[in-house]
Amino acid sequence: MMKTDFTTALDTAAAETEALLANLMSRETADGEIARPERLLEAMRYGSLGGGKRLRPFLVVESAALFGAPRQRALMAGAALECVHCYSLVHDDLPAMDNDDLRRGRPTLHRAYDDATAILAGDSLLTFAFDILSREETHPDPAVRIALVRELARGSGLGGMAGGQMLDLAAEGRFGTIEAGNEQFIITMQAMKTGALLHFACIAGGILGGASPAQSKALSAYGRAVGTAFQIADDLLDVEGDAATVGKATGKDAAVGKATLVSILGIEAARARLAGVVADAQAALAPFGDSAAILRETARFIAAREK
Amino acid sequence: MMKTDFTTALDTAAAETEALLANLMSRETADGEIARPERLLEAMRYGSLGGGKRLRPFLVVESAALFGAPRQRALMAGAALECVHCYSLVHDDLPAMDNDDLRRGRPTLHRAYDDATAILAGDSLLTFAFDILSREETHPDPAVRIALVRELARGSGLGGMAGGQMLDLAAEGRFGTIEAGNEQFIITMQAMKTGALLHFACIAGGILGGASPAQSKALSAYGRAVGTAFQIADDLLDVEGDAATVGKATGKDAAVGKATLVSILGIEAARARLAGVVADAQAALAPFGDSAAILRETARFIAAREK
Repeated sequence: MMKTDFTTALDTAAAETEALLANLMSRETADGEIARPERLLEAMRYGSLGGGKRLRPFLVVESAALFGAPRQRALMAGAALECVHCYSLVHDDLPAMDNDDLRRGRPTLHRAYDDATAILAGDSLLTFAFDILSREETHPDPAVRIALVRELARGSGLGGMAGGQMLDLAAEGRFGTIEAGNEQFIITMQAMKTGALLHFACIAGGILGGASPAQSKALSAYGRAVGTAFQIADDLLDVEGDAATVGKATGKDAAVGKATLVSILGIEAARARLAGVVADAQAALAPFGDSAAILRETARFIAAREK
Repeated sequence: MMKTDFTTALDTAAAETEALLANLMSRETADGEIARPERLLEAMRYGSLGGGKRLRPFLVVESAALFGAPRQRALMAGAALECVHCYSLVHDDLPAMDNDDLRRGRPTLHRAYDDATAILAGDSLLTFAFDILSREETHPDPAVRIALVRELARGSGLGGMAGGQMLDLAAEGRFGTIEAGNEQFIITMQAMKTGALLHFACIAGGILGGASPAQSKALSAYGRAVGTAFQIADDLLDVEGDAATVGKATGKDAAVGKATLVSILGIEAARARLAGVVADAQAALAPFGDSAAILRETARFIAAREK
């Protein structure tokens, strides 16, 4: 696969996701809603539209494509996942959390609006994810939709992303003792904080497409590896990237004394680890043969990205 | 129905809800979870256990009982709803929101822990609600579970509770212009902020029990009226109650210049309105005859409660 084809596929899915999210977050109320307050709706749109590679929806689309699942269904599940991802960024940027002013090259939501609005917009994006998954457009079979709800909830909450954010704060020494510093802690923290949603993206395609147990297992292994690769690449960017390219502040880990695989292993060894994880991701896709070419390319892209 | 029977029924459902939530929020990971970080789990438990009348779960249990639906299923749906209710309190108490130090007579979560932990615990409780609804124990039919997911998401998010919190902040004049002060605004705000979850509680029983369209409509009307009654009673308590009995700070509405139905109508007219709404709630239950005696009593209880 030529790189141009990959970039086109990524951009196309991003544009479709953007359009779908904009459409879902219109002024029109859905059944069961009383009103959509303008400021909250605007803030939700600010926090979720107009930026991002939409890597997670892309992974849903491409993993669903392995099974010939209708693209629109994958885009719905991808839009739900993107709502969770965007909510997590909005809350993570809050002064009480990472206290970031810049996100995707723009003021963070609480800087553009205010803290209360950012809290509520994050809450509402998270809630909206489950609204989207509950809709028939996501899949006509309620059993498929409820499986997506369960996996997204498990990947996002206490035992997934939110739990990982908690461990991440502990790694900064927020709660007195420094709980981090050992490699296994960092691996678990990153698998939860970043990995769990990327993992969901990959298994969601299998859920939508009716994957066999063996296929589900392959996608799950791919998703875990892709999650690890993403985080190592992210930590490398924090050390080596500049804020203008990355679109957010860099050098933050060192500034708060936070251990990462890069700080523990060193840059060269972290790069070697990254290459190994990308190879693992690609190997996991063996059962799908040539049809998984784009997913293989995605693993490379995640490792080599500059923002 | 004697008052003692009602109180017993309320207390029993509260104890069952407490036990179920404690059990669901154990240290053991569920399938698909990586780990349950101790501090986050503890904070979620702090924010959801050991207090509250559990009025919303009680309404689920009693509305489900109209149809003879298994009590354990109603308790599961009620536990999910209670997670949403508790998350909303945790986030609402944050310094950037209502900045409350006291809740149910104890320090609020961010005072007992810290702001970041409170944000993540709220997020995780919200997410956990959908995890609970996705489980087979809630109902064996995925179509029923996904209907609960949809209604809870609609009642909780942008077009429901979170939207109502946004309007409530606007009513305090947070965003420059005072948008409140007229009765219709207040009614909409309250229907969203408080009413939507109480409404969900009442229709959830119908969803679990396979209600006919006419029965669903009756439960919906009851739920809307109960929501209104709850909020008028709450506004009266804010004016007339004392903090020790109510379990949280009182006199807050007047302190921030917030309009309520009580401030607009006056105490006497608000009391009359409350009585009318209770009568509406009870009238809506006519199709269920004597079997709805506890729900009728519940409407009275909500209007007369002292905390």
